[in-house]
This record gives sequence, C-alpha cells and structure tokens, in this order.
Amino acid sequence: MNEQMTVTLSGGKTTKVSYLEDLTELSSMLGFYGNRALIVADSNTANLFKRMPPNNIILEPGESSKTLSSVEKILRTAVQEGLGRDDYIIGFGGGVVCDLAAFSASIYMRGCKLVLVPTSLLCMVDATIGGKAGFDFMGGKNLIGSFYPAEDVLICPATLKSLNEREYHNGLAEVLKHAVLSKDEILYKFLISRKSQILERDPKTLLSLLQLSLEVKKTYIEQDPEEKLGIRQALNLGHTFGHALESSGRFSKFSHGEGVAWGCACALDAGYYMGLTPKTYVEAAKKLFATYKYNIDYKIGRGDWLDFINFILKDKKKVNGIVQFVIMKGQGNYVLTPVPNDILMRVVLSNPNII
Amino acid sequence: MNEQMTVTLSGGKTTKVSYLEDLTELSSMLGFYGNRALIVADSNTANLFKRMPPNNIILEPGESSKTLSSVEKILRTAVQEGLGRDDYIIGFGGGVVCDLAAFSASIYMRGCKLVLVPTSLLCMVDATIGGKAGFDFMGGKNLIGSFYPAEDVLICPATLKSLNEREYHNGLAEVLKHAVLSKDEILYKFLISRKSQILERDPKTLLSLLQLSLEVKKTYIEQDPEEKLGIRQALNLGHTFGHALESSGRFSKFSHGEGVAWGCACALDAGYYMGLTPKTYVEAAKKLFATYKYNIDYKIGRGDWLDFINFILKDKKKVNGIVQFVIMKGQGNYVLTPVPNDILMRVVLSNPNII
Repeated sequence: MNEQMTVTLSGGKTTKVSYLEDLTELSSMLGFYGNRALIVADSNTANLFKRMPPNNIILEPGESSKTLSSVEKILRTAVQEGLGRDDYIIGFGGGVVCDLAAFSASIYMRGCKLVLVPTSLLCMVDATIGGKAGFDFMGGKNLIGSFYPAEDVLICPATLKSLNEREYHNGLAEVLKHAVLSKDEILYKFLISRKSQILERDPKTLLSLLQLSLEVKKTYIEQDPEEKLGIRQALNLGHTFGHALESSGRFSKFSHGEGVAWGCACALDAGYYMGLTPKTYVEAAKKLFATYKYNIDYKIGRGDWLDFINFILKDKKKVNGIVQFVIMKGQGNYVLTPVPNDILMRVVLSNPNII
Repeated sequence: MNEQMTVTLSGGKTTKVSYLEDLTELSSMLGFYGNRALIVADSNTANLFKRMPPNNIILEPGESSKTLSSVEKILRTAVQEGLGRDDYIIGFGGGVVCDLAAFSASIYMRGCKLVLVPTSLLCMVDATIGGKAGFDFMGGKNLIGSFYPAEDVLICPATLKSLNEREYHNGLAEVLKHAVLSKDEILYKFLISRKSQILERDPKTLLSLLQLSLEVKKTYIEQDPEEKLGIRQALNLGHTFGHALESSGRFSKFSHGEGVAWGCACALDAGYYMGLTPKTYVEAAKKLFATYKYNIDYKIGRGDWLDFINFILKDKKKVNGIVQFVIMKGQGNYVLTPVPNDILMRVVLSNPNII
C-alpha cells in the first residue's frame, strides 16, 4: 500500500489517500478492523468479495437508496452491533454508499470513525475527498448532509475493471471538469494525449489520471474546506445545470456524469452569452467533452422547462436567495454569479423563442 | 440587549450569548429575521407569544418528541418554506426543541444558520452552549447528533418565571454540577449563601447564577470543543448514571436534572469506594445536592438492575469499548475511568448482596 496524498480540511482534520494493488490487499485491510467496524456496501460491491466481513449492511444499488431511511437502517445496525464512537463505519461502494456511510458516521454518537473505499471512478475522483456527506430529500439531491472527512480513503483501481462503460464515463466527466478548473493545462493535455489508454483503462494511466485529478480537487478544497469563501464552490462547475437535468429526469435518464458534462457545456455557453467566457476557450473546453463522447448538445423540450427551472431554484448554492452559477473566464479562472433567465433558456432549450 | 459572553468552539466558530430583558424585546428580535427564518417551538413555548412569527413548526412538548421523525418534520418544513443555507433555523424552547433545531440546522443543506432561544433553566445552562445537537434513538439518549454551535444564544430570564418547580430543579442540578467542576469555590459558595433568592427566582440573582454557571461550562468547552481531549467529558459528571436512570424509567420517572443530581452522588460514592475521592469532599458535595432537595439516596431495586446496566453499557462515552465515568478527586479535579461492576452495584442497588 502506498500513501499518495494527504488532504487537510477544516479544524486541521486530514484524509489520507492510499492506493491498493488488488482486492486481496483490500480484503485483508478491511479484515483488520474486525468487529470494531460496520461495513456499508451495496449488493454489487458486496459481490466483489468472496466473503464479506461479519458486521455489514448491504443496500440496494442506485440513487433510489440515497434516502433518510437508508441512513436510519445504517444507524440501527450500528446500535445493534454495539459500535462505539471510537469504532469505524466503512463505506465500500460508489457515491451513494460512500455518502450514506459518511453521513451516518458523522452523526452516530456525534461522529464515529470513517473509512471510505470508493469502487467507482466517480466516487474516487469526487465523493470521497473533501468530506461531503448526505442524502437526497424531497427531490433535492444531497439536500441534507454534513461535512465529515474520512480518516482514510483506500483506492483500489482494480475495482474499476468491472465498471460498465456508462459508469466509467460517469466518473470521467468529473475528471474533465477538473481539467477545466486546473490552474495549469497538465490534466487537460493528459486527457487529450492519453485518450486511448484512458478509455482502455490501462492501470498505470489510470493511476496518473486519478492523481492529477485529485490534486486539482485538493487545491480547491484545502483553501475553503467548508465551502464558505467562494473557492470550493468552483468545484460545482456544471452541477447546477447537471443536477437539475438529473432531477427533472428523476435521477434516471441522465447519469450524474452525463449531467455534469452537459452542465459544464451549458455554463460555458452561458458565460459566453454573458460576455464573460472567451469564445476560443468555450470551444476548446467543449471540444474536450465532445471528444469523450458526452452529449453536450442535448436540449430540453418545452414540457420539461418548468420542472427544470424549479430544480434550478431548489439548488443549495444560493446567496440571498439567488442561485449562483460557476462561470469560467478562462482556464482555472472562474466567477460565481447569477445567470439571467433569458440566458438560461437560451442555453438549455431546443427552441427558446416559443416559450 | 447586553452581550455578556462569547464562547469559541472548534474551527474558531463563536457563539454570542446575549441577555434580553423581557418577552417584548425577544419578540421584536425574532421578528427581525422575517421569512428568512423557520422557528421551531413546542406548544408550551409557542404560547409565550401572542402571535408566533409566520414560518414556524410547533412540536409536542416533552422528550418523546426528540426523535428522528421530528427532525424529518423540521427539514420538510424548511424545504417547503424555501429556506436557503444562509437562512436561519431558530430553536425557541427547552432542551428538546433546541437540540432538535440545532441538529436540523446542522444538516440542512450541510448546515444553515442557527439561533437558540432557551426557555428553560436546564437549556440555558446546559444545552445551548457548546454545540451539542441531536435526538434519542433506539432507547439511547442523544445517541445520534452533531456538534453545531449556534451563532447567537438569546437568554431571556423572564421566561423562567413560568417554569414549574420540578422543571426549575431540572436545570438547577446542572448548576450544582458546575459548582463541583469549577476550579474555584465561587459558584459553590454562591449556591449556599443565596439559596433563598435562587429558589425565589429573584431576577438579579438568576442573572449572576447563569453567568457564573456558564463561565464554568465555557472553560471546559473551549479547551476541548469536540470532546476529544478528555476535558469536555468532565461535564458528563453524573450523566452516565443519570441517563441510565432516566432511560430505565423510559424518560418519565426521573427528570434529567433529578437523574444528574443522583448520578453526581453516585459518582462521588463510586470515587470514594475506588479510593479516589476524599470522604470530606464526598460529604460536602453531596450535602449541596441534598440542600437543594434532590433525592440522592434513591436506590434501584433488583428487578431494574439488568435494564439499568444495559443502559450504562450503551453509553456513548466509551474508550475501547469500556464505559468511562467522570470521578472527582476533589473540587474541579476529575479523572475519567471505568468503574468496576461490584462498585456500580454497591452505589446504585438497595441491596447489592442479594443479586
């Protein structure tokens, strides 16, 4: 096992990110905690092991499990297993599992120990670093939650082998987003030059990709761990559009990554119409998403507009009641700003004039 | 309004404690937030106002409301009222209301703003300072929760006038506990010399009592905001015994304060039997509780022992699975230690020999 990165969050809390070679190493790591841990998995990730460690709770896979009742189930099991506040909740799965495990750990006895083992690319580059935990509520994604960094994040790229193509692209979108947000062009160029190895999931290339991507995320998070200074918010690039698209499709038609990729393109277009984003930059960045085959030209029909705008208005990222969007002024250079309604229509609707 | 004290908690967050003269001043303070706030009250505290501010949720009074479903109700209302993360949840009531409001605020959009207006003595001296928030779960008191300090705590001693005698004593027990934990004897001597004014609830005396008591709490909390250094834990003096007594009575037979007073006496006795607490100190401290008419000689019958010890074992304050008690070595001088089972029986059972 190699420790590769330490991320320092609010109150000086740190998350150690380590890389594990294979599932055998991972399995023995988890066994180490014995009955001082409760492992939260879903029925897909539980299948990665021949035998799950004894204290475990296995959820149904998918976003529909990301509910208060799953949290209640985890807490109930923790009480039944006699977990103390010095014991561990271990999330072993994708974003849903890791966010639920982290949120449950954050409130169990006012906070027990937390280890996250992300098994999807999305979760590796997004959910596990930075301490965001939570669940969906009344149709709002991650509407309820907390900040609770894991002590340890164990990344085993071997688990990515079994992801289907759509799941893999679900995570790649966040990597592309990081390439846009990076102060330099290293990740952007890596994504262009190593495209075929990335799509083939070559182990060494994946490791570099994960490292480059997480370094970008780390710089934003460490400067503003609790998203209060207008810096960490930049990581929400594409997410206000994307979440609304996911939500108006009731979390099923579009994956998170597809929504984010589309949302990044919308934000770039909106920035252009607002006179903030240079045309050359809009084109270069959108091309990156198109190269990786994201459907960034998707438009919303009239019938979905009301639903869509309602989800936009429910967004958490409000200042004085006004939703703030992340708009790019160039590579790694962003601004948080409201977007006028006519520009929103212009970028998301197939025929904005007939509304 | 006079700001009297600022408590600094983890991450440099501060709580300002202010004192308000009367309900009119309080009412206009709350009105100030307008529809940017959701007020959480119970049907008793709601009656203190002629008219409650518009966005409010009124819970059933009492410990039986301190549940996950009340939290869900508050969160649901917050979403329906369109509260953003820069808006306020205001707890207006006793410990149950304030703990629920604070916990809900801590997880609503990963944390919105929080103001607490304690209306009981217990809540003024205990629940509102220090950021503990939570609810009861599977029979365990405050088993689920978070640390989330209020921005503002507004104390209006006028609300104490309407408390019944038992409720008032419920809070006084925590003041007496602070007298034992204080490094000096000022509060202890104040409680002895001003007993009649305290029991008559003389406004000026009450103000001094609140200030002296909160200063003791502040010193413990500021040194160890998240209860991780073995310092803040001292404030749990009497609570492991007390919570178990409350819980085994299903939260009804004994009030929190009655449990804590009894628990302090048990802890003093246990310390004596363990050779840690000097006999003279045990006697002086127990006398303080007896003077204020707490039933510190109460003993548990055989039939309740198993229930009682099960609640002790469920306590959150475990290290490596072993419950830690706060045991006094003298005035303001404590140690955290397990208590042997035979000594537990000796201090709580009416007839320990026949088990």
